[in-house]
Amino acid sequence: MTYCLTAHVAGGLIFCSDSRTNAGTDNVSIYSKMHPFCWPGDRFLCLLSAGNLATTQGVVKRMQQDIDQDAATHLLNLASMAEAADYVGLINAEIQRNQANRDTANTNFEATFILGGQIGTETPATYMIYPQGNYIHESSDHPFLQLGEIKYGKPILDRVIRPELSLEAAARCALVSMNSTMRSNVTVGPPVELLIYRTDSLQAGRYLNLAEDDAFYRCIGERWSQGLLRALDDLPHFAWEIPNETACAPDE
Amino acid sequence: MTYCLTAHVAGGLIFCSDSRTNAGTDNVSIYSKMHPFCWPGDRFLCLLSAGNLATTQGVVKRMQQDIDQDAATHLLNLASMAEAADYVGLINAEIQRNQANRDTANTNFEATFILGGQIGTETPATYMIYPQGNYIHESSDHPFLQLGEIKYGKPILDRVIRPELSLEAAARCALVSMNSTMRSNVTVGPPVELLIYRTDSLQAGRYLNLAEDDAFYRCIGERWSQGLLRALDDLPHFAWEIPNETACAPDE
Repeated sequence: MTYCLTAHVAGGLIFCSDSRTNAGTDNVSIYSKMHPFCWPGDRFLCLLSAGNLATTQGVVKRMQQDIDQDAATHLLNLASMAEAADYVGLINAEIQRNQANRDTANTNFEATFILGGQIGTETPATYMIYPQGNYIHESSDHPFLQLGEIKYGKPILDRVIRPELSLEAAARCALVSMNSTMRSNVTVGPPVELLIYRTDSLQAGRYLNLAEDDAFYRCIGERWSQGLLRALDDLPHFAWEIPNETACAPDE
Repeated sequence: MTYCLTAHVAGGLIFCSDSRTNAGTDNVSIYSKMHPFCWPGDRFLCLLSAGNLATTQGVVKRMQQDIDQDAATHLLNLASMAEAADYVGLINAEIQRNQANRDTANTNFEATFILGGQIGTETPATYMIYPQGNYIHESSDHPFLQLGEIKYGKPILDRVIRPELSLEAAARCALVSMNSTMRSNVTVGPPVELLIYRTDSLQAGRYLNLAEDDAFYRCIGERWSQGLLRALDDLPHFAWEIPNETACAPDE
């Protein structure tokens, strides 16, 4: 499977994705699922992809082709992130339709995307684009979006990601979310890509490619495990463990 | 859905379950999914249930009926936990078959169980019993089992549950795992039942029924969230945040 996520905080946008692809239980390979598009000083967009690899590659190729051939509509001349999401949705549906027209086996060609970025002076935005070609923007209370194997990594995002969180803290949180997912699902794998976009910078932002043996990434995983054990120690004890302690005693 | 889990540590067994049932998106109710059977000084067993409610109720009723009627085989005269798991598996398959024989709509009557406990001087054991009637015992490296909505609450168990963990620490871990799941899936809900069985006690063990507004349970959730934020703060910073810090710097 895939695991990708974005977080939208006051300081900017976080993009994080894994790189493992598989066909069934083997045929494992490495493909980037992070596709940035940047025109410094004008706009920055980044597409994260999940689903049928032929579809996702087809969509990205079409977007690049529209730019190269200066088509009537492409990422450089769209006026807003919402229009960009609509454009990607249209291409997504079309590529799937084309593949289905060739197919004789009722195959699932679906792909889902997250498109995030900033165009000019508009507020940064992130959108989830569905196989059906429609799309939603992120929640203002829980300003994150996820693709693929989302459940293992969701609780930490639910508890932590808020608009007021610092950009770097949100990035660490994304790496923890990815780490928890990779520990629990072997079809999500390294390298992990991380991109940090600062609001109004209209630049490509910081980019990290973290291989399996990357010292920083391993340090994140180890320190997080240690932090969890400390958090567990700090939990209230049961009444019978400390007979004199009355705070937080369970109603047994 | 349901979320139930057991943990098997050196000191004993932890059982934890939610109590929400639903038919579709409503018709929400509260049913216990924890069914203890205890003959003090001889044996203690506890069954956790998930799946079709008519099936799970049918299985528990049959087990109780076999005891009441002193059937040839019942939980009091089985010689080992493995035999007990086999017995429950047999009943599970039979109840489903009976329901299917009445059905005309290809309904899913499946139920899955975790059976844990200790019989006499045998080592305590836990078993996952599948709808097919077969069963497995827990892993010795990751000595926990889960039913139902397992993904949200799994990462903490993967990182923390080891045979050498104290019984109470394992119980706190189970409550955290349940808390994370309930925050992320509305079909898993309170009250939360927790049962702590001490190895060789052959007694019912400590039992807690934690309602939604239980002070202890809320304290667990709040302190855990605070602990996570502290753990997040303790993660290594990116190289550009602290230019002079060389430990754990990412290979950018």
